[in-house]
Amino acid sequence: MNIGVLGAGQLGRMLALAGYPLANRFTFLDTTGHPSAGIGEVMIDTDRKHLETFLEKVDLVTYEFEHLPVSLVQAIEEHKPVHPSSEAIRVCQNRAEEKALFDRLAIPTPAYRLVDSAEALEAAARELGTPVVAKSVTEGYDGKGQAVIRDPAEASDAWRSINHPRLIVEAFVDFVREVSIIAVRGRDGAVAFYPMAENVHVDGILRYSVAPMPDLDDAIQQTADGYIRALLDELDYVGVLTLELFQTRDGGLLANEMAPRVHNSGHWTMDGAVTSQFENHLRAIQGLPLGDTAARAPTCMVNVIGREGEAADILAIEDAHLHRYDKGERPGRKLAHVNLVAPTVDALLEKVRACAALLPDAPPPRFSFE
Amino acid sequence: MNIGVLGAGQLGRMLALAGYPLANRFTFLDTTGHPSAGIGEVMIDTDRKHLETFLEKVDLVTYEFEHLPVSLVQAIEEHKPVHPSSEAIRVCQNRAEEKALFDRLAIPTPAYRLVDSAEALEAAARELGTPVVAKSVTEGYDGKGQAVIRDPAEASDAWRSINHPRLIVEAFVDFVREVSIIAVRGRDGAVAFYPMAENVHVDGILRYSVAPMPDLDDAIQQTADGYIRALLDELDYVGVLTLELFQTRDGGLLANEMAPRVHNSGHWTMDGAVTSQFENHLRAIQGLPLGDTAARAPTCMVNVIGREGEAADILAIEDAHLHRYDKGERPGRKLAHVNLVAPTVDALLEKVRACAALLPDAPPPRFSFE
Repeated sequence: MNIGVLGAGQLGRMLALAGYPLANRFTFLDTTGHPSAGIGEVMIDTDRKHLETFLEKVDLVTYEFEHLPVSLVQAIEEHKPVHPSSEAIRVCQNRAEEKALFDRLAIPTPAYRLVDSAEALEAAARELGTPVVAKSVTEGYDGKGQAVIRDPAEASDAWRSINHPRLIVEAFVDFVREVSIIAVRGRDGAVAFYPMAENVHVDGILRYSVAPMPDLDDAIQQTADGYIRALLDELDYVGVLTLELFQTRDGGLLANEMAPRVHNSGHWTMDGAVTSQFENHLRAIQGLPLGDTAARAPTCMVNVIGREGEAADILAIEDAHLHRYDKGERPGRKLAHVNLVAPTVDALLEKVRACAALLPDAPPPRFSFE
Repeated sequence: MNIGVLGAGQLGRMLALAGYPLANRFTFLDTTGHPSAGIGEVMIDTDRKHLETFLEKVDLVTYEFEHLPVSLVQAIEEHKPVHPSSEAIRVCQNRAEEKALFDRLAIPTPAYRLVDSAEALEAAARELGTPVVAKSVTEGYDGKGQAVIRDPAEASDAWRSINHPRLIVEAFVDFVREVSIIAVRGRDGAVAFYPMAENVHVDGILRYSVAPMPDLDDAIQQTADGYIRALLDELDYVGVLTLELFQTRDGGLLANEMAPRVHNSGHWTMDGAVTSQFENHLRAIQGLPLGDTAARAPTCMVNVIGREGEAADILAIEDAHLHRYDKGERPGRKLAHVNLVAPTVDALLEKVRACAALLPDAPPPRFSFE
């Protein structure tokens, strides 16, 4: 089976590495002009002229990037199966749609307002209580428009700087930690859930994911499983879905956002779970049985961002698994990740600290459970 | 680093799958006209005109196949580092050289004689006691010349059928089981040993490998470690080396043959060991630290030969890992393997039986420890 992938970055690369053993072949459609997958056949389609050729080559289409024109994905669906569907993309690329879906399924979120003027933004900031974060409801190829408002008087400046006709305004959450739940749903509706991860972001970029969360309460996992199952079933979803949440002081979970794809906070599964998120995504979209999502041992994913450390030093750590993306160094760019596996959480934390010390731009690892 | 691989079959394919995460790129040189790696850049060189271009592309050369002209490998060594060296190839492709090396290092082997005539073959059969097996000392691209002699009077027929000027004649060994030891040696001389595997061959083709051998005696592992370390050090070897042995009724080990490469009896390491044989080979030849060779859990590799079973059925077995080579079906052809992992040997055997039942051409699994 030849699998077409929209996007050609490291997620596509790791999908392919998981798919060759299933005798899959891969054709990537890159619309950025800067593919980095470095594997399979990569078609560069910056002029939108190669879609037909791409579709002739492939049996099935998936994607590693959800900020695609919905109309493009719908057009592809006329010719080849696409998993997850364009409906998942439509919802996930619009924060207003996403929040409406969370509300409809009774998945709690931070308090929010939708606004379409500077005045409405100011009023929302007052109602929710500052600080708030204002975000454009859609997000294009070229990054994010968002601003933190610490005083309602800053609303008009924020409105101008974001420069988008519709914004979502969210109350700040006093969270204990950021977590994520990843699940996979097969074509037959079967669902499997990975153990939840605790995620550490610095400046909005994921730095560390630890899974299973060391102090994970069964009830919390079950709550998260229920939320993501509701999303999967509602969207008649096929493939891997990721839901990022905040855990509050009282143990509650508030949904932040979802991604209709394999996710950085699931990279730990490559070495820490019986079946990786990449293999399970491929199993799902091909109608194969889902693989076991259990963790083999406590695992931490350490992102390598901006600059790479010495591979030899990293590989000298016992049970360290380096996954390089074969990309050039650039500040803020995801270049690789290291999965560290250990028999106990204490041993794991020691390895994480040793690994972080080898990475030029890694922030100190700090977790809620330490 | 761009790694050049001589040969482009499934071993090269799996090397590449292990090497992409190390940011390696792969160029294969295929001299058969029938490459199957299906990954990286494959150069078909049936006319021996592409070697120079190949060498310009690569930083380092290794191979997945030892029946290469030694002169070719020596010529490559003039231009680029080759690991393992041409000396390893020279010894491994000649049974007389190999046995002489075993003798020199005091590694016990079955009793043998070298003969260069039908008369000498008959005399050797008498001396060793029939049955004996006669094999040409070298083995070309096109398979094996060997014959079993059950009566010395059959010697002249066997001599004609093998049709080679020099044969090695080996006494039959009353073995309890066939086993293998795989080890890896780094550029700095560091050595790591995998736990030994019990191998089941049917009609000369490997069918099952179980590792670690369930009833493995520490002393046996240490003996095997000592033998392979002697070989590695004597050859100043860099990379993965495999030694196949017979275990006799008294627990002793007799060396059968060695292979200067990753080996089918080490495929279990892809899912059953902390670091796979493929990754460790790549770490070694690049001068990176060796990875942990410990087993994670009892593992059995099941070869898929001739015809493939239904992937969906195989993947429905818990902790089953399918590795397809994306090759066409043909009697006797290695098409894939399945790694089964289980917490106990009993649970493992149940999975092996379930898996074998799904493979059209799989012989019933029978192990010495059952």
